[in-house]
Amino acid sequence: MASAEDDLIARYFRPVATHAGALGLIDDAAILAASGEDVVITTDAVIEGVHFLPDDPPETVARKALRVNLSDLAAKGAKPAGFVLTLALRGVSEAWLAPFTAALAEDAKAFGCPLLGGDTVSTPGPLMISVTIFGKLPAGTMVRRSTARPGDIVAVTGTIGDAALGLACLKGHAPLDNVEARDELIARYQVPQPRNALAEAVRTHASAAMDVSDGLAGDLAKLCAASNVSATVETSDLPFSDTARQILSLGAIGPETLIAGGDDYEILCTVPQGRWASFMDSAERAGVAVTAIGRITNGPSAPVFLDAAGAPMHLKRLSYSHF
Amino acid sequence: MASAEDDLIARYFRPVATHAGALGLIDDAAILAASGEDVVITTDAVIEGVHFLPDDPPETVARKALRVNLSDLAAKGAKPAGFVLTLALRGVSEAWLAPFTAALAEDAKAFGCPLLGGDTVSTPGPLMISVTIFGKLPAGTMVRRSTARPGDIVAVTGTIGDAALGLACLKGHAPLDNVEARDELIARYQVPQPRNALAEAVRTHASAAMDVSDGLAGDLAKLCAASNVSATVETSDLPFSDTARQILSLGAIGPETLIAGGDDYEILCTVPQGRWASFMDSAERAGVAVTAIGRITNGPSAPVFLDAAGAPMHLKRLSYSHF
Repeated sequence: MASAEDDLIARYFRPVATHAGALGLIDDAAILAASGEDVVITTDAVIEGVHFLPDDPPETVARKALRVNLSDLAAKGAKPAGFVLTLALRGVSEAWLAPFTAALAEDAKAFGCPLLGGDTVSTPGPLMISVTIFGKLPAGTMVRRSTARPGDIVAVTGTIGDAALGLACLKGHAPLDNVEARDELIARYQVPQPRNALAEAVRTHASAAMDVSDGLAGDLAKLCAASNVSATVETSDLPFSDTARQILSLGAIGPETLIAGGDDYEILCTVPQGRWASFMDSAERAGVAVTAIGRITNGPSAPVFLDAAGAPMHLKRLSYSHF
Repeated sequence: MASAEDDLIARYFRPVATHAGALGLIDDAAILAASGEDVVITTDAVIEGVHFLPDDPPETVARKALRVNLSDLAAKGAKPAGFVLTLALRGVSEAWLAPFTAALAEDAKAFGCPLLGGDTVSTPGPLMISVTIFGKLPAGTMVRRSTARPGDIVAVTGTIGDAALGLACLKGHAPLDNVEARDELIARYQVPQPRNALAEAVRTHASAAMDVSDGLAGDLAKLCAASNVSATVETSDLPFSDTARQILSLGAIGPETLIAGGDDYEILCTVPQGRWASFMDSAERAGVAVTAIGRITNGPSAPVFLDAAGAPMHLKRLSYSHF
């Protein structure tokens, strides 16, 4: 069905724009009031064929586009405040837009992050959803990448590698007989579970943080480089799911796929030793699993991943790269 | 040349990120401090083949991507504070990126609007540049679309229709012998001249405003609908350039192309009669040409464009529509 752009906005996007500053999406701009707080801004785009598959349901595409950005806010210790959306579409199909915006509205409500504005454009190319998200926190308290210190504990939330295995399943590279386990992995790839519940604990206790989006190994290397430190990670301490361990034990897929796979959207953070107990208490109260996986060491060499025998692993690649 | 994403950021984008809150682009998020001011947010994307042509120079593409957003801030009365950029590229070519980012840096500096962050992704489709821009203004003073009142003067900056004629020239639909005049029209299409110098005057005096991006007729209709008013425009009062008048007089292109053409990036605003003299004084001091083109009338019917004989024109289309 062909529809005018304004009609499209009124029908599908206005219900997601519950923030007063969105002005019902009838203006050219939105207003975000900030009385002395810092506004944290981050942007991430997802593209058909790169970040999601052409067959992925519109619901999961919507959730992923928003959640990869929510994950950044969580790692920075910020509380979600709203987002703007650029949607490049080949055309307008109600069958796609209706479930897409319904899922977007659900997530916007669940995470307290309403739509503030956007732009819908036509493209002959692949679908693209670009989100710029805004968070708030007390002035000067954003958790950075560049402030990890030697001796800090390196920690990660949830499990690592499941999303990469989910993608491998979707591409037929990880044959898995157990349908339920397979579906769980695919769900991890399609719908990230950003750890916004942990944001306040990260802001209060972590010395540095970022979210794991391109692969744990590469993202830790980035955090270390920004902080001018190094790290040692005990691979046997990494939080792999039972299914991931099972697949690893079969030998068809190595730990590298999990460590460098990307799409985890977990929080990677460093916590000073003296803060660790309080941090773990807060994490437990927030209901988010956190695992200590290593230590920050003196820089500036690349982080070292030790295998079960204590020998450094040689990773052929550290993370997903677009170019 | 293939290059890692971080290398790309360091080489080409860091020089544009002069704002302290951009953290040198080594973090996942940027910080925008706002002590009691409102942050004005707007987003606009440009796509190859839709908003610019595949042959357009990278310099003009960069300027257009930023300036269409600067134009929104100007119309809202906000002062530029920074922007984030999502760049979807088919690959990395230094020959394209170097002039693109150099021009972006020049405009960022000229308009006082530094890069705060961004995302660079690969796409098999057309080039796409999505910008989300931030402005600041005193709390509660953003100029809206929805607040025009009957009796207000309808005004527009600069000239209308030159960009549409420039696009017609590029597509070979407006043969023009005068090369200089032709180049000027094309420049209007490729590099908008946002009226940020007028922002403060708009904020102080205008009752409602928006920028003209999709076509004067359609955009005025949107403003009127949002304000629940109508308008009467004297087409003979519209600010057409000498070249546009010349082309009109030849009869090959009608006034509709100019009025509904789009890509003007001028400010359309409504000013209460009692504010008009002060507004025009401010505009003169700012060095921005402003023309009164009509009056706001009681709503809610669509705005009327009167021809030279005072008869209502029948416009077949009001503006560019993506769908």
